[in-house]
Formats: sequence, structure tokens, C-alpha cells
Amino acid sequence: MSWAITNPAMPSSDIINRKRLLATLAGETVDRPPFWLMRQAGRHLPEYRTLRDKTRNFLEFCYTPDLAVEATLQPVRRYHPDAAILFADILLIPDALGQPLDYLAGEGPVLEPIRNADGLTRLSRQGIHEHLSPVYETVTRLAAELPDDVALIGFAGAPWTVATYMVEGGGSRDHAHTKRWAFGDPAGFDRLIDLLVEVTIEYLDRQVLAGAEVVQLFDTWAGALPEAAFRRWCIDPVRRIAGALKNRHPGLPIIGFPRGAGQSLTTFVRHAGVDAVSLDSTIPLAWAADVLQPLVAVQGNLDPQMLAVGGSAMAAAIDDILAQLGGGRFVFNLGHGIVPDTPPEHVAALAARIKQKA
Amino acid sequence: MSWAITNPAMPSSDIINRKRLLATLAGETVDRPPFWLMRQAGRHLPEYRTLRDKTRNFLEFCYTPDLAVEATLQPVRRYHPDAAILFADILLIPDALGQPLDYLAGEGPVLEPIRNADGLTRLSRQGIHEHLSPVYETVTRLAAELPDDVALIGFAGAPWTVATYMVEGGGSRDHAHTKRWAFGDPAGFDRLIDLLVEVTIEYLDRQVLAGAEVVQLFDTWAGALPEAAFRRWCIDPVRRIAGALKNRHPGLPIIGFPRGAGQSLTTFVRHAGVDAVSLDSTIPLAWAADVLQPLVAVQGNLDPQMLAVGGSAMAAAIDDILAQLGGGRFVFNLGHGIVPDTPPEHVAALAARIKQKA
Repeated sequence: MSWAITNPAMPSSDIINRKRLLATLAGETVDRPPFWLMRQAGRHLPEYRTLRDKTRNFLEFCYTPDLAVEATLQPVRRYHPDAAILFADILLIPDALGQPLDYLAGEGPVLEPIRNADGLTRLSRQGIHEHLSPVYETVTRLAAELPDDVALIGFAGAPWTVATYMVEGGGSRDHAHTKRWAFGDPAGFDRLIDLLVEVTIEYLDRQVLAGAEVVQLFDTWAGALPEAAFRRWCIDPVRRIAGALKNRHPGLPIIGFPRGAGQSLTTFVRHAGVDAVSLDSTIPLAWAADVLQPLVAVQGNLDPQMLAVGGSAMAAAIDDILAQLGGGRFVFNLGHGIVPDTPPEHVAALAARIKQKA
Repeated sequence: MSWAITNPAMPSSDIINRKRLLATLAGETVDRPPFWLMRQAGRHLPEYRTLRDKTRNFLEFCYTPDLAVEATLQPVRRYHPDAAILFADILLIPDALGQPLDYLAGEGPVLEPIRNADGLTRLSRQGIHEHLSPVYETVTRLAAELPDDVALIGFAGAPWTVATYMVEGGGSRDHAHTKRWAFGDPAGFDRLIDLLVEVTIEYLDRQVLAGAEVVQLFDTWAGALPEAAFRRWCIDPVRRIAGALKNRHPGLPIIGFPRGAGQSLTTFVRHAGVDAVSLDSTIPLAWAADVLQPLVAVQGNLDPQMLAVGGSAMAAAIDDILAQLGGGRFVFNLGHGIVPDTPPEHVAALAARIKQKA
């Protein structure tokens, strides 16, 4: 398996020479920084919007390997990034656990909220991997179909972020219900987090067995928590997931993305057990180079709105990131996902600019 | 004027002995940390909701000194905090500049957006201080009516945050239009920021002349920007405002609140020229004590959702903040405003807990 490249007993293999992302995450020197972009597959691509029209139901889209494979491959054909990330959604886990979930146009996900520990009885782990098996099939097919130099990233939402959707019943600005449960009944809330930790380990384990070479944990709402709560519900769950996956798959590279972690980012990097950290757009580059890059690979962090702006402003911002982080372990990416009205030509210009650094 | 207490030529006055907030901001030792709470006046108080029903128009409410004075005083009567903050809104400045503004129930503020430098011609500084004169009258009356030991805080939105509302036409999750203007036409966007800097200086100068003893600049959306943009559009405008106000009013204490500044908070503190920094709830306490408190007074940072939870969890969180920050220059506050469904009894319990530390 390709992640075995970090086994020190093995010489650099052909795989490492082909796949810049894996080489970088293993600490090898590459000809230029690898790049991929969060939400590179999705609504900014006209061919995605056409594909998406084939079913009205977003969950059905995620659970149909033909569609999910095609969605994953579309940006690879256009931009030839150094990695593709499985097309799926962080809320497939609550769906598999039996929490009713729907995606309403213009509103995003809507779930029947679980507001306290009593509500956990509505969830069941029975049969979740049969439910999620189309995702594993998608990974298997992608591993076979991707170009030789493109790494395959599996992913899941980190437990805190998934929990916010489960408790709020959807997206939220202040995560009021989730915080009130967590602050008021921390032991009860731990039970939800523990369940998500265990299920996420199994989910990512199966993605790796199916062919994912790297996994990323998205903690989109990590920036909502005070420090003690951040340690308990963001760092610790990621540490447990990363530890379990590395036990089963020694050398598997794991990328953490505690978006908005701000002043707690160093603590995350020191304790979460990840190989790389994805930086949101607010993280100062010189600080990241000085403090984080000696500890882990860093990934990021162009502002997605700068990609939407394009032109010379975007080119200057790309060059600045490359200049400040390109000297160490570095994966070029955005600080958050591509926004839907981003012109694909801007993404193509970004890809060309990074490739010319080779 | 009471802010003259920090003039080294003057001995500690009775005022400093009476007003814990001013003493703390001047670096004096006090019997216990002063406290006040962002949005202590407002919807969580039943008496505010009754007062608010007297007019359907929120702008009219802000521009009616009888109502604004009463709204400011209500939490002082209930909780007797160490400071009252003028009841007003950060969008009075765009309103005074002639940008049509309305507050829609459940939607918050709605403005006719200005999306580029051409739109600036729709703004005019003519007569803005006549327009804002009810605010100054409110400050004058508050200065006369507040208890002797309660300091009066004036405030304004910081230019970046006010600009986001002016450009987006209201609240926004990703500030897409504002960032695209700023990133794509930084010199044109500077003109909007420069206008806001100049007008904010005049606005706060008049608040101080009317009796405000401290001013706070709220940069609610500071956490949206990459580092270079944060320096240009968050730090630099605050530095210019603080510098101009201190020129006119030597010793005036100024509190900055760059919410979400995260890893850039130290840079803010070193360069913005403020006397105190208000910390959002994510800022680690030990770090703030080590790095920030030697430089400025710190204010914060209980999570408003913890105040909504109340009870022993809140008490423990308050004690932790007091233990970690109470040894230095410190003003107890929340990390963001009180949320509307917070029980007033929880706020009273918070006030009692801090007062018993004396």
C-alpha cells in the first residue's frame, strides 16, 4: 500500500517519486510543492452542476459511486492537482447512525436535532458500514482510476464539527445548543463525541483499506470553543482517531484542519498526532514557517475570495505563500473551500502558477 | 475630565478610587477586578423589551436620548457593574453618512450596499454631527446620571467591521463582496476605510467631550482577514483612530476588540496603540497572561453561552478566568455579547461572584 512509503526500512519507491503529496507528507524533497484545493470538486464547475442535476437528492448523489467517482475526477481532468479528495459529505456519519437528514435547496443540511444525552438512544451503529458501503466502493474505484501521480485523500468531519450539526439540526452561527449541552453536561456530551470518535475510526479505516492514501479530518467549527473545551472536544477526539488509524496503518499520513483554532493551533499541532495541519486564511505565514513547519507539514492557505478575485492580486498572494512556506514541508491549498461562483479559469491560473515553480 | 487621572502630573484622585475600570486601565491596583458585560443592555432584560416596544424603529430608539439613556441604565440598576456602555449601534455612522439603513425583524440591519469606490459618492460627511447629536446628548446625560463608581464607555465599530456591513448590505457569513473589493481594488477600498477612520475619530472625540471616560472599538469581523489585510484594514485604522484621540485627549483609555484575531492578536496589541484588548472566548488564558498582560490590560472572556448555562459550570469558568488573569491588569467581561435568551439571574450570579472576590 502506498502509504507504506514512510516506513524507514523501505527505500523511496516509484510511488513516492510519482506522488508529490505523499512525498511531502513523508518529509521528502519534491520538485515543487504539491497542491489540491478544498472543494475542488463541486458547484464552481459547470460539469458538476450538470452531474448534480441527475438526482434531486444530495445524499443519493453521495451514495451513488458512478456520480461520486465522476464528481471527484472532474477537477482532476481540468486542473491535474496532486491529489483528489473523495466526493462525500461530513454528515454521512449521522445519516448512517440513523439521524434523519435532508438537504434543502438554499438552506443546507437539516437534521432532526439531538439536544441531550437522552437523544443518543435514537442513534444506532448497527449496519452503518453496509449503509456507507457505496462510499467505500467510490474509494476503491477512484484508487484504480486516478492518474498515477495523483494521491487519493479520504476524509471525515471531526467529531466536534459533526456534533454541532447533529445538535443544532443544521448549520449555525453560534452553536448555542451544542455549547450549552457540552458546557452544562460535559459527561453526557462526551458520549456523543465518543460515539463519533469510534465510528469515524471505522469509517476512515475502511476508506484506507479501499485505497485512500491520506486522510483529512475537517473541524470546520473548531474556532467556536474556549481553550479547555477545544482540548477536550477538538484535540482529544482527533488524537484518538489519528492514534487508532496509525496503529492499524503505520505511516498513514493524517491531515488535521482545526479551522479558526487561532491561538490554540500550536497546542493542536503538538497534541493531536497529525502529520500535517491545514491552515485557515488568517494564519500568519511567517509564524507558521517558524513555529509549525518544524513540527508538521503545513497546508494552505489562500483566501477563497482571493481565488474568486483572480488576476494579479491572486498571483501576488500565491507567490507570497509559496515564498514564505515553500522552503519547508508544504502543501498548497486554500484556507477554506472554493466558493461556488469562482471562475474555473482562476483555478486553472492558480494551478499553472504553482506548476511553473517546478 | 475623569480620564485625566492617568496624567502623571496628577495624584490619584477620588475618581480613580471610586471607578475600578479607570483605575485598572491606568495600571493602578484595585480591590477586585472591574467588570461589565458586552450587551449588558438589551434584549435579555425584560425591562428593555418593554422599553423597546415604545418605538418600532430601532434607529429612532438609538436617536432618542430618553430611551437610550434608560436602556443604558437598566443593567446598571440590576447588576451594578463597574461600567456602563452607551446604548447605540455601530451602524449609526453609515446612517449618518447617508447610506439608507433599516432594521428588519429577524433579519438584522439591511443597507443599500456600496460595492465599489464609485459608490462612495453616495456618502456625505455634511451635517453628520447634527445627525448624531442625540447620541452626544445621551452621553452627556449618562455622565450626569450614572452612579459615582460606574465608568462611562463610549464606542464605535472599527472601520473594517463597519465597512463589511456597508459593502454586504447587512450581516454576512463570508464577507465575500467586501473581501473582493478590498483584494481586487485595495486603493479604492482604502478610501472607504479612510473615510470611516476620519468620521470615527470625530464621532468618538465628541463622545469623550460629552463625558465618555473610555472608548472601545468593536472589530467584530477582524477574524475574517488574512494577515496582510488584517494589518492594513484592522490594525492600521485602529492605530490612526487611537492616535488621534490620544492627541486630543491625553490619557484617554482605549480598548480594542479585534474579535477572532487569533494568531494576529499579539501584532494587534503591539501596533494598534490601545491600552486594553478585549479577548474573545477562544483566547487561552495562560497565554494571554504571559504574552498580552505585560503589554496592555486584558478584558474578557467568558463564553456568552456559558452565561446562558449558568450554575456550577459558569461559576467554575468565572473562577478559572479570575485565577489566570486576575493577577494582572484585568477587566472581567464576556468574549462576545450577552445572547438574548440569557436569564438575568445568571448575570446577577456572575456579578455577585465577581464582587465577592473583593
